[in-house]
Amino acid sequence: MIVMKPTATEDEIQAVINRIESCGARAHPSRGEEVTVIGAVGDREHVARLGLEGSPGVEQVVPILKPYKLASTQLRNGERTVMEIGGRLVGGDNFAMIAGVCTVESREQTLETARIVRDAGATMFRGGAYKPRTSPYAFQGLGEEGLRLLKEAKEETGLPIVTELMDARDLEPVLEVADMIQIGARNMQNYTLLTEIGRSNCPVMIKRGLSATLEELLMASEYVLKEGNQKVLLCERGIRTFETAYRFTLDLTAVPVLKELSHLPVIVDPSHAAGRRDLVTPLSLAAAAVGADGIIVEMHPHPEEAICDGPQALYADTFPEYLEQVERAAAVAGKVLSSTPA
Amino acid sequence: MIVMKPTATEDEIQAVINRIESCGARAHPSRGEEVTVIGAVGDREHVARLGLEGSPGVEQVVPILKPYKLASTQLRNGERTVMEIGGRLVGGDNFAMIAGVCTVESREQTLETARIVRDAGATMFRGGAYKPRTSPYAFQGLGEEGLRLLKEAKEETGLPIVTELMDARDLEPVLEVADMIQIGARNMQNYTLLTEIGRSNCPVMIKRGLSATLEELLMASEYVLKEGNQKVLLCERGIRTFETAYRFTLDLTAVPVLKELSHLPVIVDPSHAAGRRDLVTPLSLAAAAVGADGIIVEMHPHPEEAICDGPQALYADTFPEYLEQVERAAAVAGKVLSSTPA
Amino acid sequence: MIVMKPTATEDEIQAVINRIESCGARAHPSRGEEVTVIGAVGDREHVARLGLEGSPGVEQVVPILKPYKLASTQLRNGERTVMEIGGRLVGGDNFAMIAGVCTVESREQTLETARIVRDAGATMFRGGAYKPRTSPYAFQGLGEEGLRLLKEAKEETGLPIVTELMDARDLEPVLEVADMIQIGARNMQNYTLLTEIGRSNCPVMIKRGLSATLEELLMASEYVLKEGNQKVLLCERGIRTFETAYRFTLDLTAVPVLKELSHLPVIVDPSHAAGRRDLVTPLSLAAAAVGADGIIVEMHPHPEEAICDGPQALYADTFPEYLEQVERAAAVAGKVLSSTPA
Amino acid sequence: MIVMKPTATEDEIQAVINRIESCGARAHPSRGEEVTVIGAVGDREHVARLGLEGSPGVEQVVPILKPYKLASTQLRNGERTVMEIGGRLVGGDNFAMIAGVCTVESREQTLETARIVRDAGATMFRGGAYKPRTSPYAFQGLGEEGLRLLKEAKEETGLPIVTELMDARDLEPVLEVADMIQIGARNMQNYTLLTEIGRSNCPVMIKRGLSATLEELLMASEYVLKEGNQKVLLCERGIRTFETAYRFTLDLTAVPVLKELSHLPVIVDPSHAAGRRDLVTPLSLAAAAVGADGIIVEMHPHPEEAICDGPQALYADTFPEYLEQVERAAAVAGKVLSSTPA
Repeated sequence: MIVMKPTATEDEIQAVINRIESCGARAHPSRGEEVTVIGAVGDREHVARLGLEGSPGVEQVVPILKPYKLASTQLRNGERTVMEIGGRLVGGDNFAMIAGVCTVESREQTLETARIVRDAGATMFRGGAYKPRTSPYAFQGLGEEGLRLLKEAKEETGLPIVTELMDARDLEPVLEVADMIQIGARNMQNYTLLTEIGRSNCPVMIKRGLSATLEELLMASEYVLKEGNQKVLLCERGIRTFETAYRFTLDLTAVPVLKELSHLPVIVDPSHAAGRRDLVTPLSLAAAAVGADGIIVEMHPHPEEAICDGPQALYADTFPEYLEQVERAAAVAGKVLSSTPA
Repeated sequence: MIVMKPTATEDEIQAVINRIESCGARAHPSRGEEVTVIGAVGDREHVARLGLEGSPGVEQVVPILKPYKLASTQLRNGERTVMEIGGRLVGGDNFAMIAGVCTVESREQTLETARIVRDAGATMFRGGAYKPRTSPYAFQGLGEEGLRLLKEAKEETGLPIVTELMDARDLEPVLEVADMIQIGARNMQNYTLLTEIGRSNCPVMIKRGLSATLEELLMASEYVLKEGNQKVLLCERGIRTFETAYRFTLDLTAVPVLKELSHLPVIVDPSHAAGRRDLVTPLSLAAAAVGADGIIVEMHPHPEEAICDGPQALYADTFPEYLEQVERAAAVAGKVLSSTPA
Repeated sequence: MIVMKPTATEDEIQAVINRIESCGARAHPSRGEEVTVIGAVGDREHVARLGLEGSPGVEQVVPILKPYKLASTQLRNGERTVMEIGGRLVGGDNFAMIAGVCTVESREQTLETARIVRDAGATMFRGGAYKPRTSPYAFQGLGEEGLRLLKEAKEETGLPIVTELMDARDLEPVLEVADMIQIGARNMQNYTLLTEIGRSNCPVMIKRGLSATLEELLMASEYVLKEGNQKVLLCERGIRTFETAYRFTLDLTAVPVLKELSHLPVIVDPSHAAGRRDLVTPLSLAAAAVGADGIIVEMHPHPEEAICDGPQALYADTFPEYLEQVERAAAVAGKVLSSTPA
Repeated sequence: MIVMKPTATEDEIQAVINRIESCGARAHPSRGEEVTVIGAVGDREHVARLGLEGSPGVEQVVPILKPYKLASTQLRNGERTVMEIGGRLVGGDNFAMIAGVCTVESREQTLETARIVRDAGATMFRGGAYKPRTSPYAFQGLGEEGLRLLKEAKEETGLPIVTELMDARDLEPVLEVADMIQIGARNMQNYTLLTEIGRSNCPVMIKRGLSATLEELLMASEYVLKEGNQKVLLCERGIRTFETAYRFTLDLTAVPVLKELSHLPVIVDPSHAAGRRDLVTPLSLAAAAVGADGIIVEMHPHPEEAICDGPQALYADTFPEYLEQVERAAAVAGKVLSSTPA
């Protein structure tokens, strides 16, 4: 949809029509009293490539069609995707509680937490072996040693494992242990990484960049879907705003809107959004009540000794009580905890 | 707390100390290996007035004390304020459902909606007689005629009335009908208006400006409290972010954080945040689950005929079902609907 | 322009067409392969009032016509407004340097600064008598005593006076001394105040709210213009973003864009944007080079003793050198300092 | 600097002191009348790792030391870095004009533009062979074929070449032609990519992520510097804000502030910030006047035929006139175009 300026001449209007038709699209001009609007019916990418925004007489170009296709609600005629991950159902009426440690630090810390997660009846276990850190001087994760500990946790508890991938060159070892790969917010637009995962068959949860629009998040998922990997989950983890009283602003409006735009499941990460333990419970209840398909949350047996993000980790021994409260909030939105193998 | 630059000289450090002491405060320098930090102990306003940020050798000034006093949690030693408004209790474990019309349009529309609100058991009735509109060409409200219709609704239903005040010169007629005055987001920093209301005794709900920090919102409440009016409520109604998929981004993290910083009740307005009817229910559930002290919501018997903000109005006939669902979410956060007169 | 959902039924499309026609507008449907788009040709306000966003089958409503009329470039066929204020020309190729004190504190401070401003050849003198302060405990300005001092500065130096108005009830005394009224960012959407000024004949500079869009700023100017007052200036003074390294983010892109959208002059306030003296000069040069019609800047004979905003005040004795550098930057953009009476 | 809550007990204060001392740092408590503040003197990373934010009685943790070291102004005692890139001097009083095509499309387009850039006397030639695109369906660049065309442009014109690297696996072919590597905004926090470039010796310009703070940008540069590569340039290219009237908001305040915080040169990209040709010239003038060390700008012989970002490309034949005007603006800030080989 091309909106012409009120001062556009007939020649300028005709030039735009000609350019639209030159790329194989059809032009539908509507001449109003003040302005003329020209609809362009055809391939969105072809029309976008014309770059009509800068042409003489053009006021603005308003895209009408969504740029994502495979992620869109229409693809499935409005039906929501339910996928199986490590034997658990995710999406639809199933509520996924993904809990674990921020960083795999040691065998004891990992196994102790994994047992608590399993005993409480949560859905999956998360743990970071590769950690993207703002500072090059900060701890960067245990790497392959961390992956080994996650494998051990999986063997002992039977829980599916979620872990982050930062570098395409680490894909192979990660695939050996991960039931779901996590793409961090900083890598949401690392397109070479997304493409590689698209060529694997491993479920992937993509975190929204801290100032990514929902459309950009869906386009990131499209990079994976386009390569053939259909198991993509979206994750809201807080956006960056002017407010400095908390680390990020959890954008819960994104949840119902993403579910309207896309058939993919939507997970919420209250831990990284808040950065503070005392906010994790209220934000988790809100996320469950707003209709999220799951929550990913961090805990630690001894948060004050955590190497990374201790202040936001729940005390592991309060987890069962926390989970019970979240389940009640999820029930208000019509969802049931997905805990037993499917 | 004044942080000096690593390059600050001893003379620059001494000059800052002298200026702090010149306003009657005490200076506590701590000399680290890289930088010197000087604590200033005394009246916050006096120290702020020194304007040390621009002084030679100063890196930054970090205020330690909160600038608000009467709104702060400490004032009540952590106890939350419970107030009576038009015979209803607000705050504490009471959940207030404030529902009504965006704009008072006609006698039928107002009375019909008020009856639905009363019958469903909600807490108060809201209706706008004075409307702040971005466009001077848009409908600006019925004014005093609107106030008369609100009075009639109050007489018929017994519901307390909430209505907006935009101009201090309208205070008197508004006080005749309002049980609670609403200050809109655009007027959050209209200090002459806040001061006038502070001199009345009427409860007031102050909406957060669309890019106001929580500290600024609390300072706005301080303008009212300082004049002697202790019945102030805070309202989160969505902030402005980069996301364009919805009108505003409802900031639910603000709710638990405001409740930590202040003893005042916190209300959420999902209607104006979302601007779309289909988002109002999920956001209301999230607001109740996150621990809000209430919700203010708009409905209309025939939204498609509404003069203003019809797209965000709930259908009035679905209100009872909506309220029931919100009550269940509030229960998860430990709150009970405040509906019968106190 | 109403964009229907891909799933919209023929009945839903027809219902939208009927509603458009019900308000006297004409409907132009374009049926694409994937979606139908319906143009609505008629009065913008009437169509907006239909609230079609919430109707069944509607994806989004894209307004095509600008909501402002009197502020728009078209009103003057692209010619820029040049106005006379206190005998000085503003707009067009004239560059206005408005300089002075943040707050009128004393006779000496005011007169000393005014003389420096006059001697350097600046265009107008600014000084605040009424100060909007975030804290009710902060100094709120000298009020009418401040106005008297400004009058004295005017009599002595012959400079036109710019001062802020916060409350419509102070309009009369302010009009006695002001050659131009300033509306602060917090009051940009104080519509009752704007309307009152619109009924006066006094030039007014409206500061952009710290998260106001350009469209909202233009709509604020429209409130004044609509009442008959044609002398409106727009002022960019920094917007609120996520960045915390400085107080506000000066949005210089707003300058050329406002000049494209509107015929009104555009002024930049680097002092309040930066909040720090050392940033004022580079930002002033940038503002002049980007094509601003003027700058409003603060200085103080002894900034370290300033009651308010001392850290951002230029040292008064460096003002002549500063002004000379700004003039050179303005020359790059084709503008000449407006200093002698017109 | 740890700020305790007003309600913190003596035990809580002592516990914080003990934890600080447990990591080898020293604790300096200052007990004010209302709150106690504890300075922690020692290694920043060690103290950060304590995660004191979540500890009982702690209000907030205020970091005093900057987290970046090699990028900081102090490293060079306030002297600015001047570096040689492909025989041209960058930084200090040298103004770099980096101009070229968004995407290498064809031999003619590339060579024709390169000749115009050389003839006008610009500093370097830019051209993209690998293009990060929001949509997987959009043109992704010519890849190695594009690198070959850039090599040809370099051989013919003698201009140093700037091109983007997205994937560490392409580092080797890129190093064969690039005199400077560009890291795009989306990859600013792709730490594995930054680390690899840090191990090369190739100058690198890092673009600020669209919502990255200056501190995060400096930390990204630190990833490169830490590996031994000292030739890092910072680039402001517009940030994401609420304003929708333009693509991004160019943050020119970042330029003087980055130059205060760091010794590294600061470049501005007005093309991507604006997204519209008509804004490129005013924003370039502003960037030069604010004190930037250079500009990176896009042009095209026939923008309306450009595959990518045509609307923001300057017409190549207007480049000489544009460059002359930018030089005049740079002169106001005391800088001279760096065009002849050093």
